[in-house]
Amino acid sequence: MPNYQYETVTVTIIDKVAHVQMNRPKKLNAFNPGLIRDVQAVFRALADDRDIGAVVVSGSGRMFTAGLDLGQTDITSSKEGDLARLAYNKRAHLKDFQAAFTAIEDCEKPVIAAIHNGCYGAGVDMVTACDMRYCSKDALFCVKEVDVGLAADVGTLQRLPKVIGSQSLVRELCYTGRNLLADEALQCGLVNRVFENQEQLIGMQKAHAPCLSNTTPTNLICFLSLITIAESLKMAALIASKSPVAVVGTKHNLLYSRDHSVAEGLAYTVTWSSAMLNTEDIPKSFAAFVNKEPATYSKL
Amino acid sequence: MPNYQYETVTVTIIDKVAHVQMNRPKKLNAFNPGLIRDVQAVFRALADDRDIGAVVVSGSGRMFTAGLDLGQTDITSSKEGDLARLAYNKRAHLKDFQAAFTAIEDCEKPVIAAIHNGCYGAGVDMVTACDMRYCSKDALFCVKEVDVGLAADVGTLQRLPKVIGSQSLVRELCYTGRNLLADEALQCGLVNRVFENQEQLIGMQKAHAPCLSNTTPTNLICFLSLITIAESLKMAALIASKSPVAVVGTKHNLLYSRDHSVAEGLAYTVTWSSAMLNTEDIPKSFAAFVNKEPATYSKL
Amino acid sequence: MPNYQYETVTVTIIDKVAHVQMNRPKKLNAFNPGLIRDVQAVFRALADDRDIGAVVVSGSGRMFTAGLDLGQTDITSSKEGDLARLAYNKRAHLKDFQAAFTAIEDCEKPVIAAIHNGCYGAGVDMVTACDMRYCSKDALFCVKEVDVGLAADVGTLQRLPKVIGSQSLVRELCYTGRNLLADEALQCGLVNRVFENQEQLIGMQKAHAPCLSNTTPTNLICFLSLITIAESLKMAALIASKSPVAVVGTKHNLLYSRDHSVAEGLAYTVTWSSAMLNTEDIPKSFAAFVNKEPATYSKL
Amino acid sequence: MPNYQYETVTVTIIDKVAHVQMNRPKKLNAFNPGLIRDVQAVFRALADDRDIGAVVVSGSGRMFTAGLDLGQTDITSSKEGDLARLAYNKRAHLKDFQAAFTAIEDCEKPVIAAIHNGCYGAGVDMVTACDMRYCSKDALFCVKEVDVGLAADVGTLQRLPKVIGSQSLVRELCYTGRNLLADEALQCGLVNRVFENQEQLIGMQKAHAPCLSNTTPTNLICFLSLITIAESLKMAALIASKSPVAVVGTKHNLLYSRDHSVAEGLAYTVTWSSAMLNTEDIPKSFAAFVNKEPATYSKL
Amino acid sequence: MPNYQYETVTVTIIDKVAHVQMNRPKKLNAFNPGLIRDVQAVFRALADDRDIGAVVVSGSGRMFTAGLDLGQTDITSSKEGDLARLAYNKRAHLKDFQAAFTAIEDCEKPVIAAIHNGCYGAGVDMVTACDMRYCSKDALFCVKEVDVGLAADVGTLQRLPKVIGSQSLVRELCYTGRNLLADEALQCGLVNRVFENQEQLIGMQKAHAPCLSNTTPTNLICFLSLITIAESLKMAALIASKSPVAVVGTKHNLLYSRDHSVAEGLAYTVTWSSAMLNTEDIPKSFAAFVNKEPATYSKL
Amino acid sequence: MPNYQYETVTVTIIDKVAHVQMNRPKKLNAFNPGLIRDVQAVFRALADDRDIGAVVVSGSGRMFTAGLDLGQTDITSSKEGDLARLAYNKRAHLKDFQAAFTAIEDCEKPVIAAIHNGCYGAGVDMVTACDMRYCSKDALFCVKEVDVGLAADVGTLQRLPKVIGSQSLVRELCYTGRNLLADEALQCGLVNRVFENQEQLIGMQKAHAPCLSNTTPTNLICFLSLITIAESLKMAALIASKSPVAVVGTKHNLLYSRDHSVAEGLAYTVTWSSAMLNTEDIPKSFAAFVNKEPATYSKL
Repeated sequence: MPNYQYETVTVTIIDKVAHVQMNRPKKLNAFNPGLIRDVQAVFRALADDRDIGAVVVSGSGRMFTAGLDLGQTDITSSKEGDLARLAYNKRAHLKDFQAAFTAIEDCEKPVIAAIHNGCYGAGVDMVTACDMRYCSKDALFCVKEVDVGLAADVGTLQRLPKVIGSQSLVRELCYTGRNLLADEALQCGLVNRVFENQEQLIGMQKAHAPCLSNTTPTNLICFLSLITIAESLKMAALIASKSPVAVVGTKHNLLYSRDHSVAEGLAYTVTWSSAMLNTEDIPKSFAAFVNKEPATYSKL
Repeated sequence: MPNYQYETVTVTIIDKVAHVQMNRPKKLNAFNPGLIRDVQAVFRALADDRDIGAVVVSGSGRMFTAGLDLGQTDITSSKEGDLARLAYNKRAHLKDFQAAFTAIEDCEKPVIAAIHNGCYGAGVDMVTACDMRYCSKDALFCVKEVDVGLAADVGTLQRLPKVIGSQSLVRELCYTGRNLLADEALQCGLVNRVFENQEQLIGMQKAHAPCLSNTTPTNLICFLSLITIAESLKMAALIASKSPVAVVGTKHNLLYSRDHSVAEGLAYTVTWSSAMLNTEDIPKSFAAFVNKEPATYSKL
Repeated sequence: MPNYQYETVTVTIIDKVAHVQMNRPKKLNAFNPGLIRDVQAVFRALADDRDIGAVVVSGSGRMFTAGLDLGQTDITSSKEGDLARLAYNKRAHLKDFQAAFTAIEDCEKPVIAAIHNGCYGAGVDMVTACDMRYCSKDALFCVKEVDVGLAADVGTLQRLPKVIGSQSLVRELCYTGRNLLADEALQCGLVNRVFENQEQLIGMQKAHAPCLSNTTPTNLICFLSLITIAESLKMAALIASKSPVAVVGTKHNLLYSRDHSVAEGLAYTVTWSSAMLNTEDIPKSFAAFVNKEPATYSKL
Repeated sequence: MPNYQYETVTVTIIDKVAHVQMNRPKKLNAFNPGLIRDVQAVFRALADDRDIGAVVVSGSGRMFTAGLDLGQTDITSSKEGDLARLAYNKRAHLKDFQAAFTAIEDCEKPVIAAIHNGCYGAGVDMVTACDMRYCSKDALFCVKEVDVGLAADVGTLQRLPKVIGSQSLVRELCYTGRNLLADEALQCGLVNRVFENQEQLIGMQKAHAPCLSNTTPTNLICFLSLITIAESLKMAALIASKSPVAVVGTKHNLLYSRDHSVAEGLAYTVTWSSAMLNTEDIPKSFAAFVNKEPATYSKL
Repeated sequence: MPNYQYETVTVTIIDKVAHVQMNRPKKLNAFNPGLIRDVQAVFRALADDRDIGAVVVSGSGRMFTAGLDLGQTDITSSKEGDLARLAYNKRAHLKDFQAAFTAIEDCEKPVIAAIHNGCYGAGVDMVTACDMRYCSKDALFCVKEVDVGLAADVGTLQRLPKVIGSQSLVRELCYTGRNLLADEALQCGLVNRVFENQEQLIGMQKAHAPCLSNTTPTNLICFLSLITIAESLKMAALIASKSPVAVVGTKHNLLYSRDHSVAEGLAYTVTWSSAMLNTEDIPKSFAAFVNKEPATYSKL
Repeated sequence: MPNYQYETVTVTIIDKVAHVQMNRPKKLNAFNPGLIRDVQAVFRALADDRDIGAVVVSGSGRMFTAGLDLGQTDITSSKEGDLARLAYNKRAHLKDFQAAFTAIEDCEKPVIAAIHNGCYGAGVDMVTACDMRYCSKDALFCVKEVDVGLAADVGTLQRLPKVIGSQSLVRELCYTGRNLLADEALQCGLVNRVFENQEQLIGMQKAHAPCLSNTTPTNLICFLSLITIAESLKMAALIASKSPVAVVGTKHNLLYSRDHSVAEGLAYTVTWSSAMLNTEDIPKSFAAFVNKEPATYSKL
């Protein structure tokens, strides 16, 4: 079993669910080289961890993430050396950054982003690579890149339109860099649910104490973060309780289908399912249904 | 003219509209091999029937469909024989099942699903292959496959995301198997309209008596089913009254465009339209507009 | 600098924003060969005009556009000559018509359509090729083609589904030709905002006097048109004030990503950004942020 | 087991190899509606016949095939009725014709075409849908369509370039309709082997007597046809002796890879092989190798 | 009728064949902005000229072309201005250059390149956009770009591999910049024929005098050029004598099929042919065949 | 600088060329987990090594490679555990094996395979992922997988058809597992050159002594291997002497173009070149040409 020790990320395992928390609260969980490296590492490890069935990703402290860590990014406009070589050498860095979020997509277990307060720039790149998004009522999403002189280049322009459907809103967000608040995020389909119920929170704090212990809920932001994480964990636990053959196959085929024609998606699914339909999980599921007992599935 | 006699499906022709009703009410219209075969057969026949301009598909009895008929499906987990051969021999069955719903898409006349009460599992595969969906207020949609140990493999994972746009909701529905109720189905764009007005129903019963005669509206479910079917038939009749050159060309090009880039879709449409723009339906349509009389179009 | 003199289109330049107004009010801005030619010409000129950062397109007079100009279109059903040659010779005309609207998409500056009152047929083809759509409360959108015996063949069937996401609504609109009113257009994501506030208008008339001077706001339609245009110009000015490296790169990559898989979109963005990330606009943007002063960017 | 009785096609089964011979020698095996229908039927039946591992297709009599049967084809240039309807109603016929040859490709067992003398027009469409091509020295291939006023539309323009690689030759053949003789066909990679050795033939006649008995080798054409068929059957028997899991998987993945990028082909193969690599054929093959005995594989 | 007057290109029309000759012999037909512009202009004009059925393109003087005109190209390595703007402003120039050769591909009449002596750099980009290539025995092809510090970026890397099939040779040519001589060009399928017969030339000079008059055959290079052009014209005349419905449809569908899967190519062809199969050229062709007289086809 | 120490692979650096030699001669360089891991590691390291411009890969000892190491591969046919889990767990291993050879393709420096004697099974997967192939006259290539009960699944079915062009030969090789000898490999375009000249070898031994020192040329196989490696190194050195901006850009764009349509390949190249055309390598190359001195390029 991996030990899940990282410099910038905290991982808590609760039953079959992993809670990945970005843990640079003083830097507002901004993406520095360490965090980028750790995000990729943790999701590659989770992908291979047969004990895990679903993942929640959140940010510790005041907000989900402030985006790129400008303090550790070279923002000068260099003309040193040959221009072709300057351009070529940007490639490796960019591909690494993209790979960190693609690791979330390639991790074949569902990943839920639990977002509170700010989710800026690279944060949008990250959460659109997740399967679902839960947020608190104070959340705001911002495709900030246009305001710093660049096109969002680690996934937002590719995935945001496929997550929410409407191009009208995508263009507006990406051209203006304006904040998208929780309610509009819910309405446009970016997030699945918005949380604001403090009473509900109180009960949750107890139920989910193990994973929340390293956070001190001293103010509203913390309350909102806690409830969002708690509900995300609940949903993750629900998904993790289901047949992993079914869940992994669903994510795998949804991703293939997103990027292919319907005819190609159907043909691919035949090949996938021909191997998977002889699984013991099917008779197990039916037996459980008949006996009105939860099924217990083996690891995948 | 085909006789449209099938074991598990009832076909009623009203003017240019065909009403296809799944007719295994005691089995909640669950898909057994017979129904799968009949759905494919009826839609292939309708595709070739030049008298038909639009189709409504509904379910008789208590619900639209309960999904796969487990009583007639082998759900054991066999290890008999060679594993490669076991896998290979699943292929033909799966392709046949997919072909039944693809026949709806390949039938170049618009198809409206009229859904009441439950639409489970394979029912979602079916209705997402239709052009439009009308439902009653008691409808619920459920991607049930995840609860029985498999990935939905006859179309839902391919078509549902392209029907509703938002990936957030798609992932949630497919990972959890939760019910999607009529109102949410309307809001997310899965269905075009939801019906619940019983007064409106009374008038409709008379107007659409011919096609509804074999159903006895003795309770709320029947009322809701009736009104949904009646309104679907009205919409189908409207579409069927239009130029078939226009309608068929629209469906054909929408499907091509869904699965290709915009540039490819535009180029394909040029080739399609170059053949179709010399149609007599264009001057006929203008003459009708000028004379304020409905146009009468030939069969396609 | 181009002089932007066209027969059927008026161009007003305000700072970095171009306002393109279709100017055949007596013909309800219907698309005749002249207007098709001018739309293509003006957007190709704007694409090359380094002084322009964003564009607004509107219609003068009573409505945005009535669609194809039937008075100047041959709608007879000819059988003169060989059928293959009849079909072949339709191709060039259709490709030209498509090219006019594709020129809007290929113009790498964001284009906002400001729509009031009717937007029929080819008008929908046009506005779906724009980046964003603002409309007044009296706006209505109508995929009229089905009612004149043809499939919409200059872009609607390709772009409308990718703009709004939901296929349910697309099918309904395209099969029935029904009007889509402003509120529903907002809800389904076709338009970004709907305007109706007359008070707000009064202030705007003054602020935007230069570009509105050739319109006399004597009635409600004019009021609604004016406010929509004024707000569109304001949004265009906001976008035009941002780094053109960022804005153009965003449009370019959003279009590429719309038509490719996520993996391909990511790889393309790496190549694009490797050239663009050494821009001076990035340090300029940061300096502006630190100094709390607006940045001034060079032309692209 | 299917009885393989067809009007225009003779099927002989020799061990695991099916020899499909087009049998309209008086009409030079020209494709009339009956032959088109039978070709599709026989290859669909062979696809499902678990006793068959490879197929040879040949033509009886004087040549492989003269192409389309003009005596049974309507070649008049009709203008009766609406032009759009004329065009639309060509679609079904064309799709059926294409489907006959696509059935060869979809039959997942390797198919070898044994060609002697003329292979005109639709014959080229047919043989390019096969896996391999053997021909006698008197063979000639001719993309005849250009000489009768149409573009080859049942597969040649799609498959010929992918079979032979060089576009230069493809363009020449398709624009001029010139004959491609056996030697050039070998050199450009259209055929795998050319046969002319009469001595070799004598021995073969005996060895393959069962399948050749209904042909009387009274002249050179027959000799050449016989030797080509005999060698094709020998190759087919060799292929049919191998693991069907390996052979079918190879054809399936080669076809997928032909039509996709390398990256997509690799990903697809992973999914295919994950189901197939647990086959008993692998240890069987190794045991056979170690024991220096031929392996016996089960049917697929 | 266009007058076909260009600064750098000479056009001679002989019956239905256009002979386009690059006419900068003192500059070895190197591509300067004028020639790039004229190539695009002439092929766009020829595309629309219904009197033309096929085209030959050649170079006047000592060689086919020396490639890019370095004397009129800015080869300094500028760092003036912002790097993103430097990169962005290269785009338009490159797209224009590519468009010149894509105009050859988009011209739906077959184009034969008649190549003698050197065909360097951009010359390879040009001839791979043609349908067929004839060359004299002194011809040499050279993907020169690698030797001047850049990747071939106006078509060679895209089209050369699809013209000749073998990637082994493509990589070698493109990495080394070595000369490919006529014989090897024939063997690898880059050219269709190689000419060297001087006796044959003598007869041709007379037959093709009109188009060759502005060249003085005083040495071997001229002889080789003449015979290659003469044979190209003969082949072009043969193609131009055939049904334009057939020839244009063949080129159009070959290009579509090159860039799509077989299944997509087949579906596209159905749509194309449904419009074209009612052509009068089919019965005309058959009548000509029966009457043993050449058919006369109308312009397309 | 990496130290290039691996267990199963020897790396020799000569100027800008890396010679990677598989070094399990007693096991005939069969692919065991160690060699698979080392091949991926070495090519990833070479990809990042700015001192390297081209690579040669060869096999030490008696042959290039015998393919998969059966002594270290589990070939039993397990039915232990759930079938879906058995299938799923094959995925990771297969993807790793594919990744080893894809690392060759992703290494943006040209890679030449120097093949002598046997190149079996996975060896073909490997060499088709290289850019060019040189072989000695005793070389033989064998797609062995069909004889051991599986479809070639680490690249041959994807890349071999795109390397050689002709599908006829590909199908034959893959269905029969027959040996392809050096001469036929040359003719079909699989290899670029075949070596057999022993005299030439003698001179080479001296010239290339440094890299060949660990091999004792005591017999014919060694002689043939040596000359092939020596010539491969010479070609690699030639390529490595050229502008890396040009060479890397060429490989990158050839790979993109292989997997996309011509139109997409052209558009991609515009984006690539817009960044690269301002390179100093262009004026350097011209200056070298004018001064008749070799250019010296910086590392990329």
